[in-house]
Amino acid sequence: MLTKTIVRKVVNSTIRPASHMAVLSRREIEQLRDVTGTGLHKLFRKCALAVLSSGSQVDSCEELMSMYPDFDIQVSERHQGIVLEVNNAPAGAFVDDQLIEGIRYHLFSILRDILYLRDITSNHKNISPNLQISHEIFYRLRHAGAFHPGVKPNTVVCWGGHAIPVEEYDYTKEIGYYLGLRGIDICTGCGAGAMKGPMKGAAIAHAKQRHKSGRHIGLTEPGIIAAEAPNAIVNELIVMPDIEKRLEAFIRLGHVLIIFPGGVGTMEELLFVLGVLSHPENKDIELPIFLTGPASSGPYFDSVIRFIEMTLGATSLNLIRKVIGDPELIAKLVNDALLHVTRERRQRDDSFHYNWSLHLDEAFQEPFLPDHESMAKLQLSRDLPTQVLAANLRRALSGIVSGNVKEQGINAIREHGPFQITGEPELMQAMDELLTSFAQQGRMKVQGDYIPCYEIVTDSTA
Amino acid sequence: MLTKTIVRKVVNSTIRPASHMAVLSRREIEQLRDVTGTGLHKLFRKCALAVLSSGSQVDSCEELMSMYPDFDIQVSERHQGIVLEVNNAPAGAFVDDQLIEGIRYHLFSILRDILYLRDITSNHKNISPNLQISHEIFYRLRHAGAFHPGVKPNTVVCWGGHAIPVEEYDYTKEIGYYLGLRGIDICTGCGAGAMKGPMKGAAIAHAKQRHKSGRHIGLTEPGIIAAEAPNAIVNELIVMPDIEKRLEAFIRLGHVLIIFPGGVGTMEELLFVLGVLSHPENKDIELPIFLTGPASSGPYFDSVIRFIEMTLGATSLNLIRKVIGDPELIAKLVNDALLHVTRERRQRDDSFHYNWSLHLDEAFQEPFLPDHESMAKLQLSRDLPTQVLAANLRRALSGIVSGNVKEQGINAIREHGPFQITGEPELMQAMDELLTSFAQQGRMKVQGDYIPCYEIVTDSTA
Amino acid sequence: MLTKTIVRKVVNSTIRPASHMAVLSRREIEQLRDVTGTGLHKLFRKCALAVLSSGSQVDSCEELMSMYPDFDIQVSERHQGIVLEVNNAPAGAFVDDQLIEGIRYHLFSILRDILYLRDITSNHKNISPNLQISHEIFYRLRHAGAFHPGVKPNTVVCWGGHAIPVEEYDYTKEIGYYLGLRGIDICTGCGAGAMKGPMKGAAIAHAKQRHKSGRHIGLTEPGIIAAEAPNAIVNELIVMPDIEKRLEAFIRLGHVLIIFPGGVGTMEELLFVLGVLSHPENKDIELPIFLTGPASSGPYFDSVIRFIEMTLGATSLNLIRKVIGDPELIAKLVNDALLHVTRERRQRDDSFHYNWSLHLDEAFQEPFLPDHESMAKLQLSRDLPTQVLAANLRRALSGIVSGNVKEQGINAIREHGPFQITGEPELMQAMDELLTSFAQQGRMKVQGDYIPCYEIVTDSTA
Amino acid sequence: MLTKTIVRKVVNSTIRPASHMAVLSRREIEQLRDVTGTGLHKLFRKCALAVLSSGSQVDSCEELMSMYPDFDIQVSERHQGIVLEVNNAPAGAFVDDQLIEGIRYHLFSILRDILYLRDITSNHKNISPNLQISHEIFYRLRHAGAFHPGVKPNTVVCWGGHAIPVEEYDYTKEIGYYLGLRGIDICTGCGAGAMKGPMKGAAIAHAKQRHKSGRHIGLTEPGIIAAEAPNAIVNELIVMPDIEKRLEAFIRLGHVLIIFPGGVGTMEELLFVLGVLSHPENKDIELPIFLTGPASSGPYFDSVIRFIEMTLGATSLNLIRKVIGDPELIAKLVNDALLHVTRERRQRDDSFHYNWSLHLDEAFQEPFLPDHESMAKLQLSRDLPTQVLAANLRRALSGIVSGNVKEQGINAIREHGPFQITGEPELMQAMDELLTSFAQQGRMKVQGDYIPCYEIVTDSTA
Repeated sequence: MLTKTIVRKVVNSTIRPASHMAVLSRREIEQLRDVTGTGLHKLFRKCALAVLSSGSQVDSCEELMSMYPDFDIQVSERHQGIVLEVNNAPAGAFVDDQLIEGIRYHLFSILRDILYLRDITSNHKNISPNLQISHEIFYRLRHAGAFHPGVKPNTVVCWGGHAIPVEEYDYTKEIGYYLGLRGIDICTGCGAGAMKGPMKGAAIAHAKQRHKSGRHIGLTEPGIIAAEAPNAIVNELIVMPDIEKRLEAFIRLGHVLIIFPGGVGTMEELLFVLGVLSHPENKDIELPIFLTGPASSGPYFDSVIRFIEMTLGATSLNLIRKVIGDPELIAKLVNDALLHVTRERRQRDDSFHYNWSLHLDEAFQEPFLPDHESMAKLQLSRDLPTQVLAANLRRALSGIVSGNVKEQGINAIREHGPFQITGEPELMQAMDELLTSFAQQGRMKVQGDYIPCYEIVTDSTA
Repeated sequence: MLTKTIVRKVVNSTIRPASHMAVLSRREIEQLRDVTGTGLHKLFRKCALAVLSSGSQVDSCEELMSMYPDFDIQVSERHQGIVLEVNNAPAGAFVDDQLIEGIRYHLFSILRDILYLRDITSNHKNISPNLQISHEIFYRLRHAGAFHPGVKPNTVVCWGGHAIPVEEYDYTKEIGYYLGLRGIDICTGCGAGAMKGPMKGAAIAHAKQRHKSGRHIGLTEPGIIAAEAPNAIVNELIVMPDIEKRLEAFIRLGHVLIIFPGGVGTMEELLFVLGVLSHPENKDIELPIFLTGPASSGPYFDSVIRFIEMTLGATSLNLIRKVIGDPELIAKLVNDALLHVTRERRQRDDSFHYNWSLHLDEAFQEPFLPDHESMAKLQLSRDLPTQVLAANLRRALSGIVSGNVKEQGINAIREHGPFQITGEPELMQAMDELLTSFAQQGRMKVQGDYIPCYEIVTDSTA
Repeated sequence: MLTKTIVRKVVNSTIRPASHMAVLSRREIEQLRDVTGTGLHKLFRKCALAVLSSGSQVDSCEELMSMYPDFDIQVSERHQGIVLEVNNAPAGAFVDDQLIEGIRYHLFSILRDILYLRDITSNHKNISPNLQISHEIFYRLRHAGAFHPGVKPNTVVCWGGHAIPVEEYDYTKEIGYYLGLRGIDICTGCGAGAMKGPMKGAAIAHAKQRHKSGRHIGLTEPGIIAAEAPNAIVNELIVMPDIEKRLEAFIRLGHVLIIFPGGVGTMEELLFVLGVLSHPENKDIELPIFLTGPASSGPYFDSVIRFIEMTLGATSLNLIRKVIGDPELIAKLVNDALLHVTRERRQRDDSFHYNWSLHLDEAFQEPFLPDHESMAKLQLSRDLPTQVLAANLRRALSGIVSGNVKEQGINAIREHGPFQITGEPELMQAMDELLTSFAQQGRMKVQGDYIPCYEIVTDSTA
Repeated sequence: MLTKTIVRKVVNSTIRPASHMAVLSRREIEQLRDVTGTGLHKLFRKCALAVLSSGSQVDSCEELMSMYPDFDIQVSERHQGIVLEVNNAPAGAFVDDQLIEGIRYHLFSILRDILYLRDITSNHKNISPNLQISHEIFYRLRHAGAFHPGVKPNTVVCWGGHAIPVEEYDYTKEIGYYLGLRGIDICTGCGAGAMKGPMKGAAIAHAKQRHKSGRHIGLTEPGIIAAEAPNAIVNELIVMPDIEKRLEAFIRLGHVLIIFPGGVGTMEELLFVLGVLSHPENKDIELPIFLTGPASSGPYFDSVIRFIEMTLGATSLNLIRKVIGDPELIAKLVNDALLHVTRERRQRDDSFHYNWSLHLDEAFQEPFLPDHESMAKLQLSRDLPTQVLAANLRRALSGIVSGNVKEQGINAIREHGPFQITGEPELMQAMDELLTSFAQQGRMKVQGDYIPCYEIVTDSTA
């Protein structure tokens, strides 16, 4: 029997730095070369490959690594600074053997953030742990140059699926276009679909508005970067250490949220922000949330809203506003909402660039490592305070996302079978309904038949 | 019977200048206000309305004027420079009552060029008339800031129809994308379709390449600006006085030509450049021409090539290269062609920014006013030198374009019936075939049934 | 007898353009090369040599030409634009064979303005001659990029001698320093002394204020450029065609005037502006004038003020304010004065960048060619309206400056002896006193004994 | 008896940040406000006062503090970032109540570096202590934005006295002028005299060369900042934690050294660099050193050279080159030297921006706290390796500088009497001669009679 060999086009290249990020100490270079055994080189290589594969339809680092087994990237010192030597890199990142500039920025952004992943050690011993994490996120964002003080609230976070029907994708482009005409900056979680569409639309609008400094911020994490590689329009790429810090970064950096149709991951994000906003300390915080999609996405949003109503209760619906099929209206509403946020920040004398006032419990900050044990232990009952229930539902979904798209989760499921989730019957039924409707709408996984990575075990003792 | 009144949304606004173009003398302001009776105000108003209607589907200034009868634009002096006061302007040019920035640039570009339309008087009495015109074009382009000396040949002129099928439009976007990835500048005749697509594609590519200074040059003329209003992505708008100077500007400013599917106007442009290049003095000039479109445009290019072969002869086909359905290949070929042009300019010590070496006979420069008399007089015979025949065929088609989309032409046809064109039977048959195939392919007019604005009178005496 | 040969250090160099000024037409290049016999090359060569001799102590073009007889400058076309080929240029303009950047700008500014000297032809046939000249000046300044619309009145014109004692020079530097600390732009007539000091002081202040766009405008004319070559700190050099247009440019472009100690030339400038402001139509125009110098300059200003009082009358003294020995106070007064000017321009809706409201009689605009005939004809009587008398006194002094430092004047005196000036005895006595005091103070000529170039012929018939 | 009360002019002001340095975390703001008791506020206040007193003739923080006892500076958070509130600040830092921009930069540079003073904690446990310090210096310089990778070696460090005769000061200006004409960047230790002159000269040259990005780097430390406050031309101010790190920063950042006449401090710096270069590992390192001054400084350099010869030996003289009275020659030699350094760095593939190859023993890095004990303990014998002897001589002089100008040293002398220094008789005699000649030349202290802060105790046991 013959094995079919796919010969992928690869490129070797020497890449000069995109900016001042290139000034590394000799020690840092050694770390990235793994002379020091810190493991940074492995991480850098993995993330770099993800970035260089931008635009491909691959869903995991494992898969990527197996496609480009000979890929390597090394940092070298030169008299004018450093250079990156890449070998056997995916050819799609290059135009006539020149690396696409946007991807070059991404490579050096990753390098910047990966080195900093280890470096940060809070000097603030006498503050509470949750404040410490919020400070850490602040330092990471500042290190990445994400703060533009003096600029009025202008950043819209867009959440939604990376694999959505073309009609929904076109709708996100239209939203981006109308936001872009208004000079609004876009922040997403990187990747394709609802994360790429708004940036593409905004890029066209920015060209019409001669707007040369529009921000297209991509917030990612090492665990997700392969499945949702930054599209090349992202002009600020930031790597946060884990999903919880990434989610907190979204809501502290962003001023308004737009939620497009998506899958479990999007639902997880919505639960996160609803949970945070449900905390009594946050009751006066302005963080407007819009749910929007084309007419065809009606059933999706119906499922989502029903789920929230059944789990967190009808009050939580006051935190969101749904608009179907009107991109220009959304853009106008977002514009108004930004004015509200601006006014509120002024009143509090709170900074425009980082939402310090937002209170986050540790439940939203502690990394949740979804494994069979932690998933089985989750408390899911409507007797819990809303923010606690939201946090736990979020974790449950996080586990499901992990089982679907993250390396670790996929491996765990392969080995031990589906996660077992227990909880109050009504809640579990709501979740079951939600996930079933997602599966029916084809929102659970990109390729092949959908096989759930979890089983719901109704808590008969409740 | 009730007359249906369409209430169009209009906007009043005060518009500050886009740049230093705003420094006008008191006299210039008076001219634009028509205190001096120069007629400049009428011209300015007409062109301004066209620019403000960018994106609409209107085909003539007449129609526009009737849609916005109360539109006016006035220049006023302020202590900080000038401002434009617009009244009853089409709302589509505004976002939340703010003029789209790209359109603001267009308004002031028009103002700049219209004032200069009258100002230029050649001081070079002792040079030949055709050189004088070439100098005039040089001065106009320089006045408009179109020269970037020291930049290597990088400007690709795209010609093609402004009303083309979506498949062809998407193809022009793809070409723009692959050119944009290579940092190539685009120059078109303004308008929609093949003139907009490449710029839109390039805008996305520029975003990926972090290319902030890509040029999207639109070359227009007062007679065509309403039918082919500049799309807002055009970031350099230049108004030339007439079609002949506009065509000369294209081939002196551009370094490579791409011809997409179009109609009679596109054919006219192709004849113009083939005629010029056929002149013996130009035999060593590098001005590469590519014909390209999606697979579905095959029949179109077959008609075009057959027509050239039958009229100018097979030799002329050596000047062009046809590539169907491969946008990335075109981009690579264009890149190579630009290197050739660069090398040739260096060898001649000819400037990169203006193709002085190109020789143009007066036949290609004299404004051709297509009316029933001039159309009837055209000599069309293969006994003429190639460049003369090409010039005359171009004029014939120019008349046809005028009859289709230009105010003056449409009015003349309305009054006196179709133009009568006489010529050598084989030539006239070729033209008849060409135009019939265009009509069959739906390439002759945007809306309603196509009614030819000409009749071919075979020259029985030939 | 042996002739002493001075071997001057010279440099040959190819100079690339400083900016877009470099885009010339083939015809313009021919004009500058004198293929066309326009005489432009001779003028360009003369002015270029003056600019390249910046810092030398030479007083006339003749002298310069005799020092560098083999100097030449030629424009050549290259594929990337034009270059200047200089041969046998004064070595002082170069640092290690690289032309000083500021001087490179000057060369190309001269080229820009010299080409435009011929080009301008007013299209405004139906306006009065004096308005026409004011428009011409506007067009020249605009062509030179001298207008920065939207910038508040900020330009201080400094007049004073180019050969002044070191104490006075240091004082002008201090004034420049205190003006520069306030971000005020400086405009002078080029040259050394009071024209260079304020710029040098301002340059230090700008460094302290991180002010990178401070303007150091030098207004010159072909007749004076050799004697008062622009110092290299001048970052905007503008060549006006003659002294009258240059003086008008000063008072239409500048917002406040500072008059330092000087000689006859400075007195001429003061008479010009006092004459203009004395016109009834200008009685409400704000154009504040400060006379200032160190304590040692007291006698100088006493002479000046006595002369004005005796000729134009005490009322004219209201137009000026004298401050001795307090640079910081002057800077504060200038700052206040600029606020007044700003307010007045706003009220009139007059442009900030060009003082259109100022009325100039033709007497202040007509080029005055001082020769023995015109000098003899001057009417000098206190019966004339103030502005007419001021104009004539100015002309008389202009003739004297010409006889002192300008090529033509010096030659005329050499040939025909001193000018003969006639007038009302009291006036002539005032002038005699003024010039005698200037001579005593060493303000009449730089080197050698001072020999007056005029004789006062008291008008016994008056 | 009446106490004379001096009323100093003070200003209250709110100061907006100069740049992105303004993004502080809430915790950092608290630290600077001393809510946290870190002591940062006291340090910030002291350094801020020094910066705001730039240009005054004060020699210690103590003195400054007593002059402005009510001065305070506080950081406040605003919605657009932070602001500084200053109260009772020296009026000399302001122009019409606006803080001089250069000083504003200095305030925020201090804030940046002071916060970072505490933050840095090396993660590099497994490298040698001296390498660790070199890395720390690298991180501090990088944090301050001092690295411009890709720029060829271009930084000249100027050392010399801050209180020197006017003739020497003018000479340093001239050197700065000729360096500035060549686009060379200047780095000094801040302060007046030889630290200010080169920058002032360069500022004028930069204006002539239209050089807008010339670097004027000032390297200071908290202990010296009051006595040598940065002049406002410094456009990059960097605060290092102590004198040793500051000196190391000089020689790792600079490419060529110029040593002007100075006092003991300058001698200390020269000993430091000669000691480092004497280390066998550094024998191939290019770090050219020029000694230069006007003709009148001849005796000074004679003393210096004799001292080096008598202590470190004649070989050390090969490391330096003396040029007297020829500023343009120095500029040319420096230019050549920079080319050598560039070539050497390329050959080693060593970075242009940080001289990693230079080896420093801990003896040159350990903070030396000069007190009576440490001064008494110093080993001073020619039997020691050259680099060790140089280090110890440097320490001895460091103690003397401290006793002269630093707060701590002055207090210690006040309390315990002069330092006692022991050593080999010939060495001690050399030092005695050196210091005596300095005192005779008036180079030991600015005001009042010079009273040595040390006594030499000849080591009779040696």
